[in-house]
Amino acid sequence: MTINLRPPHFRDPMALDPSAELPLPIDSELLDTPSILVDLDQVERNIASMASLAKRRGMTLRPHAKSHKSTFIADLQLDAGATGLCLATAGEAEVMWRHGVADLLLAYPVLGRAKLDRLAPIVEAGSLTMVADSVEVASGYSDLACRTGREIAVLIEIDSGMRRAGVPPEQAGAVAVEVDRLPGLRVRGILTHAGHSHAALDQRGIEEVARDEVRAMQQARETVERAGVTVEVVSAGSTITTPYLSSDDGITEVRPGTYVYNDLRTLSRYACTPDQLAVTMLATVVSRGPARATLNAGSKSITTASTVQHGHGHLVNRPRSGFALLSEEHGVLELATEDDDLRVGDRVQILPIHVCVWMDLQPEVYGTRGGQVVQRIRVDAMRRSL
Amino acid sequence: MTINLRPPHFRDPMALDPSAELPLPIDSELLDTPSILVDLDQVERNIASMASLAKRRGMTLRPHAKSHKSTFIADLQLDAGATGLCLATAGEAEVMWRHGVADLLLAYPVLGRAKLDRLAPIVEAGSLTMVADSVEVASGYSDLACRTGREIAVLIEIDSGMRRAGVPPEQAGAVAVEVDRLPGLRVRGILTHAGHSHAALDQRGIEEVARDEVRAMQQARETVERAGVTVEVVSAGSTITTPYLSSDDGITEVRPGTYVYNDLRTLSRYACTPDQLAVTMLATVVSRGPARATLNAGSKSITTASTVQHGHGHLVNRPRSGFALLSEEHGVLELATEDDDLRVGDRVQILPIHVCVWMDLQPEVYGTRGGQVVQRIRVDAMRRSL
Repeated sequence: MTINLRPPHFRDPMALDPSAELPLPIDSELLDTPSILVDLDQVERNIASMASLAKRRGMTLRPHAKSHKSTFIADLQLDAGATGLCLATAGEAEVMWRHGVADLLLAYPVLGRAKLDRLAPIVEAGSLTMVADSVEVASGYSDLACRTGREIAVLIEIDSGMRRAGVPPEQAGAVAVEVDRLPGLRVRGILTHAGHSHAALDQRGIEEVARDEVRAMQQARETVERAGVTVEVVSAGSTITTPYLSSDDGITEVRPGTYVYNDLRTLSRYACTPDQLAVTMLATVVSRGPARATLNAGSKSITTASTVQHGHGHLVNRPRSGFALLSEEHGVLELATEDDDLRVGDRVQILPIHVCVWMDLQPEVYGTRGGQVVQRIRVDAMRRSL
Repeated sequence: MTINLRPPHFRDPMALDPSAELPLPIDSELLDTPSILVDLDQVERNIASMASLAKRRGMTLRPHAKSHKSTFIADLQLDAGATGLCLATAGEAEVMWRHGVADLLLAYPVLGRAKLDRLAPIVEAGSLTMVADSVEVASGYSDLACRTGREIAVLIEIDSGMRRAGVPPEQAGAVAVEVDRLPGLRVRGILTHAGHSHAALDQRGIEEVARDEVRAMQQARETVERAGVTVEVVSAGSTITTPYLSSDDGITEVRPGTYVYNDLRTLSRYACTPDQLAVTMLATVVSRGPARATLNAGSKSITTASTVQHGHGHLVNRPRSGFALLSEEHGVLELATEDDDLRVGDRVQILPIHVCVWMDLQPEVYGTRGGQVVQRIRVDAMRRSL
């Protein structure tokens, strides 16, 4: 027998006390754990650095917002010269459009009325470019274009070797022509994601992936143009492969996401240096045992993402202690002798294996400068996989 | 430059159209994907089955709500005779208490004023039992007891071999006495979680873990009682080890969580049969390639949880196709020849590796009976790790 006592305005707790005045030292009890800290000075440097790289190479920069899911961070990127945003879901696109971002690329094959109807206002505003690798997907876009009375620009997704989505370069022309003929659609170019850079053996292997990416896009462009469709946009480049790309290769736009924060996954892919890691999770030691410290951050907060060299994560300034075990709300550290000083109640900072999944799990993260929390950062598109 | 257009009542999209009338066939376009389906007939059987097992063995049943995080499911468990609920976080406890559940066990070492203050109303109502494995943690409980003027019942956590939290059985007496002496606290018993059953090699190994669990609790009870503290509660038993436990061994209460839904992780631990898997994720094929189908459920929805035999998940009625790759919003299936019929737009159902992490990622899941959605199930405690 239960009685419903839930008051109408019961709200989820936030890690930072709503009454806390900023700036606030990060070791304040008003900041609960687990919580995510974002080094804003470093974020600004990361944003400036990628903006400069893209500019030097003659490519426009369209950051992928799936990595931060935050209008606050998006604004920093746009203010630094980004041409618009790339999104992975209709829900992310809605959030950024309602925030006022006027140039959105939804780099995902969107299927079904439920999602397409939600995109209608963005199409009506002329703010959305869509992506397709099949006529089935493009047909839905065509229906949407007809319903809204607005032409929709489409990029054809090319498989440059990842085998996740996209058409092989040699088939791009045929698909582009078919899509371009659908009522209300105009093919404006091609797009790829060379995510198989994560599977490359070493730095040379990553560079080979990037060259394959370039070659695939050059071949796709040729087949599309030979089929009579003009290619204005050649969109490629992740955080990992962008350093190897240039407009000299015909790439017009890059879409890195993780670079804004970086993580141990992209570090292990040589895409950032340790000083460029801008995000940590603050966690508290809740239990101690012999050579063991247990943190209140488990798989529901840091996820089960892992790399061979870093396991499920890595502590700031404690490189010899690693995660022996993750439960949902427990992260069990196997402690090196030098870290035996950790006591119940102490706080540590965990570096992310995959920061993009971290950002999908927190309604709010905390911007810091010089060890002080200075900014609440709303993660507006948290859990918007629809 | 952006302008904030976000209307004040902008709400996150739900997979099921808010205007949809129930019952609704699960293949309706009004149900978007990815979305989670819960077979309510099977959930009821799972609940009844565990309730019956606990009763036959003379143990009370306190289901762990971290697996469903839903007041709707909690009510089914309580109606079937559960004595109360077990929770992993203060945030979960708040949700269940506000719903009216009057007997809550927070099986986690809770540290810090931010969390303890939120628990004060539950303590004031006499509805909360807490767990500690150190005097540092118990001191916070003592302060809370003094602030609220209410005695708090505490269980001492015992490490029965998992090495995650808890004191070794032989030290339980000393810790129990120290905690019991703290103002406002009364030690009522002992608690353990034998989660190392996940690391056992085979069924016999799991049974050995369960016997170790029993022996550890028997030893802990002896040391605690020898130290002069009465042990009323001996709380143990997960979904995996409960089938091996009984009041004959001195276990008074079990706290299984996953059993309500089950998943491939507990199936591989012999804790359920395939017909008892009550949850699937509905996902849509968004791209096809040679021997490849790509689903719109990736690591942000099904997580990177994996088992050796099932990888990142398993499709209903398509046992030969498995996940070759997971991106954040893409799940790439390597298709068996027999599954080459899958087309863009088709829907499949994915069985969970670890259902408890799935349930932390959806604001709402959908109860079905006989292929029809019959119930919106709010996941009230989604992402309440604080």
